[in-house]
Amino acid sequence: MIRVTIWNEFIHERENEKIKEIYPQGIHGCIKSFLERNEDMEITCRTLDMPNQGLEEDILRKTDVLIWWSHIKQEELTDENARRVQKYVQRGMGFIGLHSAHFSKVLKALLGTSMTLKWRHGDKERLWCINKIHPIAKGIPECITLPKEEMYGEYFDIPAPDDIIFLGWFSGGEVFRSGVTFHSGYGKIFYFQPGHEEYPIYHIDEIQRIIINAVYWAYQENKSMEELECTAVEKPME
Amino acid sequence: MIRVTIWNEFIHERENEKIKEIYPQGIHGCIKSFLERNEDMEITCRTLDMPNQGLEEDILRKTDVLIWWSHIKQEELTDENARRVQKYVQRGMGFIGLHSAHFSKVLKALLGTSMTLKWRHGDKERLWCINKIHPIAKGIPECITLPKEEMYGEYFDIPAPDDIIFLGWFSGGEVFRSGVTFHSGYGKIFYFQPGHEEYPIYHIDEIQRIIINAVYWAYQENKSMEELECTAVEKPME
Amino acid sequence: MIRVTIWNEFIHERENEKIKEIYPQGIHGCIKSFLERNEDMEITCRTLDMPNQGLEEDILRKTDVLIWWSHIKQEELTDENARRVQKYVQRGMGFIGLHSAHFSKVLKALLGTSMTLKWRHGDKERLWCINKIHPIAKGIPECITLPKEEMYGEYFDIPAPDDIIFLGWFSGGEVFRSGVTFHSGYGKIFYFQPGHEEYPIYHIDEIQRIIINAVYWAYQENKSMEELECTAVEKPME
Amino acid sequence: MIRVTIWNEFIHERENEKIKEIYPQGIHGCIKSFLERNEDMEITCRTLDMPNQGLEEDILRKTDVLIWWSHIKQEELTDENARRVQKYVQRGMGFIGLHSAHFSKVLKALLGTSMTLKWRHGDKERLWCINKIHPIAKGIPECITLPKEEMYGEYFDIPAPDDIIFLGWFSGGEVFRSGVTFHSGYGKIFYFQPGHEEYPIYHIDEIQRIIINAVYWAYQENKSMEELECTAVEKPME
Repeated sequence: MIRVTIWNEFIHERENEKIKEIYPQGIHGCIKSFLERNEDMEITCRTLDMPNQGLEEDILRKTDVLIWWSHIKQEELTDENARRVQKYVQRGMGFIGLHSAHFSKVLKALLGTSMTLKWRHGDKERLWCINKIHPIAKGIPECITLPKEEMYGEYFDIPAPDDIIFLGWFSGGEVFRSGVTFHSGYGKIFYFQPGHEEYPIYHIDEIQRIIINAVYWAYQENKSMEELECTAVEKPME
Repeated sequence: MIRVTIWNEFIHERENEKIKEIYPQGIHGCIKSFLERNEDMEITCRTLDMPNQGLEEDILRKTDVLIWWSHIKQEELTDENARRVQKYVQRGMGFIGLHSAHFSKVLKALLGTSMTLKWRHGDKERLWCINKIHPIAKGIPECITLPKEEMYGEYFDIPAPDDIIFLGWFSGGEVFRSGVTFHSGYGKIFYFQPGHEEYPIYHIDEIQRIIINAVYWAYQENKSMEELECTAVEKPME
Repeated sequence: MIRVTIWNEFIHERENEKIKEIYPQGIHGCIKSFLERNEDMEITCRTLDMPNQGLEEDILRKTDVLIWWSHIKQEELTDENARRVQKYVQRGMGFIGLHSAHFSKVLKALLGTSMTLKWRHGDKERLWCINKIHPIAKGIPECITLPKEEMYGEYFDIPAPDDIIFLGWFSGGEVFRSGVTFHSGYGKIFYFQPGHEEYPIYHIDEIQRIIINAVYWAYQENKSMEELECTAVEKPME
Repeated sequence: MIRVTIWNEFIHERENEKIKEIYPQGIHGCIKSFLERNEDMEITCRTLDMPNQGLEEDILRKTDVLIWWSHIKQEELTDENARRVQKYVQRGMGFIGLHSAHFSKVLKALLGTSMTLKWRHGDKERLWCINKIHPIAKGIPECITLPKEEMYGEYFDIPAPDDIIFLGWFSGGEVFRSGVTFHSGYGKIFYFQPGHEEYPIYHIDEIQRIIINAVYWAYQENKSMEELECTAVEKPME
């Protein structure tokens, strides 16, 4: 069983009628509904308004892969919670950051760069797969068209990715590294750009398939749950 | 003129007689002495005991490349100072982290991983260059022998380096990615493992040459000193 | 079913009595015996002395993963056969090059560099895993000791690997990138250094486990078997 | 003095009147004219119709950086000449492959992949710099617009680049890794996509600046001119 926790800020979907129509159960509810069709996945949802912002030690300890959507309340996440998530990723918990999560305290802590980019609402996007043999791209066509998406454009300040899987083309003239992987300690990280709240991006089949693939990819069967520490090796082997 | 600031914790060299003998002017003093032979470099030294821990905004604004040595007082650096250095690196200041600086708050913030490793005192090290065409390796022999050095061993929890320049071989049986580069924003980062305080590592010609090369490599003539920010591009080009 | 073909030069094991004792069925026979314990693998062996050097179009068309060992007769492989293997890798056939296969016409064609290195017989090797979360490292201890192995040392002239999984430490003082992955077209490539014919390397459990893992990793369920070609896209999408 | 050799196929510019108007001295003549304004560069031009296809041993021995443009006669280059260029790159000669040179025998030999891509005539291209701190990007704006260029689109079958410097956006909907670096042995390689013969691409200031930067980047002051060979190290250091 892969224990997936979806953490969502869950503000837009309650405060804006149009967005509520697109995601009546919240973005997390939509993601839950297509993930739970996979019989080997067990889904939990957590939101910012819960006690401890939904990020208790006990939740993270039982999470194999954490999916994260956040936007307007990035700064409200406590530093302590950001550090706790970072620590669990380093111990082997997978992490999938969606769309505006690029600017979450968690991804900024995990990657260390400024995570800045260009943005504009309402472009058409074409998502090109440039790494067809990556597990996250399994069964994905080489080009996915998103009729309306928020433009995210280069320069995107990220470290050297382990792999670049998708490049985004935007009708207004920009390009973007839209699907990239990293690691921290024993944890695998996937950042995926599509998913602005005003457009029904997570209802699109191929986008759902990519997120499902990413969960399988980020999951580690025998992950160590020990904290990484510097180790004194007193006796040399030789 | 390349404005180099050397920041040193400067504890061991005052508190331990043997180490004081090796570095009577401090590790920073030793590094200053071989850097200042380069006429295009202007050297400033800062230490932990100075006001503001030697890291005032004004110092960083006038620094092109910051060299960092820290060990026993890593936790005493204020979070604010660590963040300030991180921000200047992202704006284009070069950063050279030496030896135990792997575990400094600054490098942990810049790279986001746990920076953990194995360690043991008193091995022999052989430093192999596996990237002879990198500017940092210019004029460096393919193997440098350090008769005594602290062993730093894998697994070393770092992100995917931009380049691996040196691999360390240790007499006790370990290996290490001993010279690796990264970037954050517009800043170039070099982490270099040799330099335990009990051995006269920074007196060795080839080690000095590597640090000099790294300063030239990390320096950027026309670096932007603006902070990186997310930018709204209201009008599409197309 | 994963269709694995093991291609072996098969000279040393017939001409040298000591090597024959270590590998009475040839190196390919030894590898076959531990691979075929996996019920989802179907193993075929091919050797240099077979018609067409064992590399008929029909064999490659039915191969999901090709394992390659060659040494003293590298130059006898026809250019046509090397090119044919290269083409099938680009179409999606996995390729595992073992030990002296670094200097095979096939790997030289696939990677384009000189594939040169340093070598010496009879060192002890310690194989360090620096990428524990890679599928090829699954279940592998962080350090494997090979009491006797041929030293392969840096500088190893390879392209930037997709991933470095193992670093080798040698008792004589050298280091080596001992387990590295690449890709070409839709084919995944793993080069693995251990396996000098005079030492019973392929009888060691952990080495067998690494090769088994590599077969699963290199295998692609739905690989295209079309040849890659430049494609004219006459009508723009926009 | 940096000794630059420009090798050009030089067919289109003689056989097609429109192309002759754009490049009356050939593409090589245009490139020569903006390179030779740099007083530390010494330019030689070689073309396919010369004896030995312009690639005598003596020419390559005296070349620090080789710039290559080829298209319709890729297959006429002899295998021997392709191998000779490959060997000199491995010894430290820089190589800059322009536009359709992606499919030259030389780049295919150096990189080992199929080098296939998508193409179409007559798009608008926007060239985005995603690596502003790379020496090849020095002084280059973050976006260069090419009013008309041949579309080259992903999937582009190349190995993992050392660095990706430019991404191309095309008006018809495609994206491309338009400026990428590699190395082979001691030689630095830059592939740069712009330069279809029907459009006056090499007359554009920023494109010229990129090529000039690439020459300085690929040049190695003290390059070894020895051939790389496997080396027996008979005596261990330890």
